[in-house]
Amino acid sequence: MIDKVRETSPLIHCITNYVTAGHVADMLLAAGASPVMADGINEVEDITAISQGLVINIGTLNGRSVESMIKAGRKAASLKHPVIFDPVGAGASSFRTDAAKRILKQVPCSVIRGNATEIKTIAGIAGVGWVSEDNKASPARGVDLSKEDAVTEKNVSQICESAKALSRITNSIIAVTGAVDVAADDKRAYIIRNGHPMMAGITGTGCMLDGLIAAFLSAVREEGAKAAAEAIAAEGLCGELAYRKITEQEEGSGSFRVYLLDYMSRLNHQQLNGGKNIEIR
Amino acid sequence: MIDKVRETSPLIHCITNYVTAGHVADMLLAAGASPVMADGINEVEDITAISQGLVINIGTLNGRSVESMIKAGRKAASLKHPVIFDPVGAGASSFRTDAAKRILKQVPCSVIRGNATEIKTIAGIAGVGWVSEDNKASPARGVDLSKEDAVTEKNVSQICESAKALSRITNSIIAVTGAVDVAADDKRAYIIRNGHPMMAGITGTGCMLDGLIAAFLSAVREEGAKAAAEAIAAEGLCGELAYRKITEQEEGSGSFRVYLLDYMSRLNHQQLNGGKNIEIR
Amino acid sequence: MIDKVRETSPLIHCITNYVTAGHVADMLLAAGASPVMADGINEVEDITAISQGLVINIGTLNGRSVESMIKAGRKAASLKHPVIFDPVGAGASSFRTDAAKRILKQVPCSVIRGNATEIKTIAGIAGVGWVSEDNKASPARGVDLSKEDAVTEKNVSQICESAKALSRITNSIIAVTGAVDVAADDKRAYIIRNGHPMMAGITGTGCMLDGLIAAFLSAVREEGAKAAAEAIAAEGLCGELAYRKITEQEEGSGSFRVYLLDYMSRLNHQQLNGGKNIEIR
Repeated sequence: MIDKVRETSPLIHCITNYVTAGHVADMLLAAGASPVMADGINEVEDITAISQGLVINIGTLNGRSVESMIKAGRKAASLKHPVIFDPVGAGASSFRTDAAKRILKQVPCSVIRGNATEIKTIAGIAGVGWVSEDNKASPARGVDLSKEDAVTEKNVSQICESAKALSRITNSIIAVTGAVDVAADDKRAYIIRNGHPMMAGITGTGCMLDGLIAAFLSAVREEGAKAAAEAIAAEGLCGELAYRKITEQEEGSGSFRVYLLDYMSRLNHQQLNGGKNIEIR
Repeated sequence: MIDKVRETSPLIHCITNYVTAGHVADMLLAAGASPVMADGINEVEDITAISQGLVINIGTLNGRSVESMIKAGRKAASLKHPVIFDPVGAGASSFRTDAAKRILKQVPCSVIRGNATEIKTIAGIAGVGWVSEDNKASPARGVDLSKEDAVTEKNVSQICESAKALSRITNSIIAVTGAVDVAADDKRAYIIRNGHPMMAGITGTGCMLDGLIAAFLSAVREEGAKAAAEAIAAEGLCGELAYRKITEQEEGSGSFRVYLLDYMSRLNHQQLNGGKNIEIR
Repeated sequence: MIDKVRETSPLIHCITNYVTAGHVADMLLAAGASPVMADGINEVEDITAISQGLVINIGTLNGRSVESMIKAGRKAASLKHPVIFDPVGAGASSFRTDAAKRILKQVPCSVIRGNATEIKTIAGIAGVGWVSEDNKASPARGVDLSKEDAVTEKNVSQICESAKALSRITNSIIAVTGAVDVAADDKRAYIIRNGHPMMAGITGTGCMLDGLIAAFLSAVREEGAKAAAEAIAAEGLCGELAYRKITEQEEGSGSFRVYLLDYMSRLNHQQLNGGKNIEIR
């Protein structure tokens, strides 16, 4: 699929946060896609119309940007563009939770991607159980995962079932990322066992993944959950390679970020197929 | 000229986008200049007054920032500071095209820099022909170049003439950057054959160039088109060196960005003179 | 203290500028802390409530963000969180100076950190003498230090006394950073002789330090000036190591930024104690 991204070079419209916008743009370019960052309320529809996919990321939200997100999201959906929604920090403030509610209600999202705490909050909004019967979101810790929500080998089967159920209600692919990653539609779940904990040691690996998922879905236009799983595996594989290199060279998180992009910009079909670790449930 | 930038260390006021603002600041510092990023409507005149040059880049535009750009631009022009205008994505949305129109009308710009699609849109606004007789801008692809507009060895003579004509009408130096770069005033065009396609593989090489051009013009204060050509050659040369290094070391786009800055921070007069490839037409 | 930061992993709420926000987030992660960037007026209190420290940095100010800063600052202070205030470019525009005034009046700041020109402006606002009897701030040069204000071995004793006096009036720790750094409370001043001039050759070393100081104070919760001095020494030491590496490898400012993070992400107690150069006055 990465070859297809490079061939078609989809233009991805990103309404994202100012902390990681540059990283997202570089990651899209490294994968062979092309970014356009635009959040002005007066132009988001025009920009979406010339794009092939949309990312909505509420990392640094304000009143005006929610309106832009909804406007762009509705336009993108009407054009059958994949819409990736990342509810960053949902549950951390009522403003974010409310914004997530409004977006979910008004925008048909192709994919909802977040860490387990964020997705648990989305399940709460959608009125769907999450893992245990207890449906209340655990208190969010900023934009970080609450430890008790982490996806582990122990609870991954339950996470898969919860994600499928949530997919059924929201009509969106659900991508839960963390130590173990899950991407599920209403019928099938993909468990991805790539990546390295060091990826949480730099800012924006989640935001970059939003972009990658949009690029993969735009390039493939079918089997959305599988495409999302491939995108997750691709970034994870690059993270593994980058970690190996910084360990060999006794480097740290600065070099890790550089090598993550290096490996993505050189990643091809064969490498991805050889290195990806995806299980279907 | 790079030595002059390092000697005078001009302070460059940048009203630019949040995607690449950090990269622009680092590039200015690498060249020996100093950045100040400020776009609050209540302070742009004060900040411009203590600066030596101004960059206006509409990469991530909103209603309020257009007003700041115009206010700062008029102040900078009144102080005879070089004003570099980058109409990012002009033609991609009517909001951007309108903003470009307003800025062109109200701000005397020293340099207008963009890719060929953006400059073609500017030519359309100014009512000047561009390359062929057909003056209509081809549909813009986000912030990217439309392939049919690309500057090549075949059309570069025509591009030079079109740029001179546009310079005459706008009273600005016209810098068209791409695979081959052109910087022209009303009489003379400089063709710059430096750089590497990899520069389009990271975000912000155009925005960084806006900053460099402002720094070179601020330091030199004469022969604007020549100074712009030198700035373009300087970044291009660093791009060539960076590409050579990542090829030798089997690295990718992450390292390319790092080395681009590395080489700029070490670039001197001799190196630039030895490596630059500038033809006068 | 760095070990304590890694153990407790404080969540630091940053209301900072869009130029360096990503760098600040990466630096916090490298030190073992966790960042959350949020400046929406409707959520800053919620976000501060789940955090352990707050950074207020006026690098790219607008009307709305001042209100968010004050709201968050008052909430953080009421929760006894350390509040780090960085008056970037105070004195460079009346808008910034007025914003600094308002913040100082309404927010009890644990630490005020800036270069000598910015701190001199703060002293002027507080009505305290700075170094010489002449209390007027020298004209600010954007966000850069005015040369005549630089902290040197010659005036460092006077700077220590001025900082103590300013600390007494503002009830804040005063951190003046430059070639020589000073952190002082009302009784004691710490002189830090770490770092390298190359740190001024990349954007955001000051902003990153704001984050680090917040993390150190949040982790230690006592002896604030000493904790601030340790944070300053930690970044400075990483800067020294990074400079040594780029010199050996004939690299420049791009690699310097990468290695600065590399060294911070690997820094431990022993290294910091061995490398820090802190004198108590």
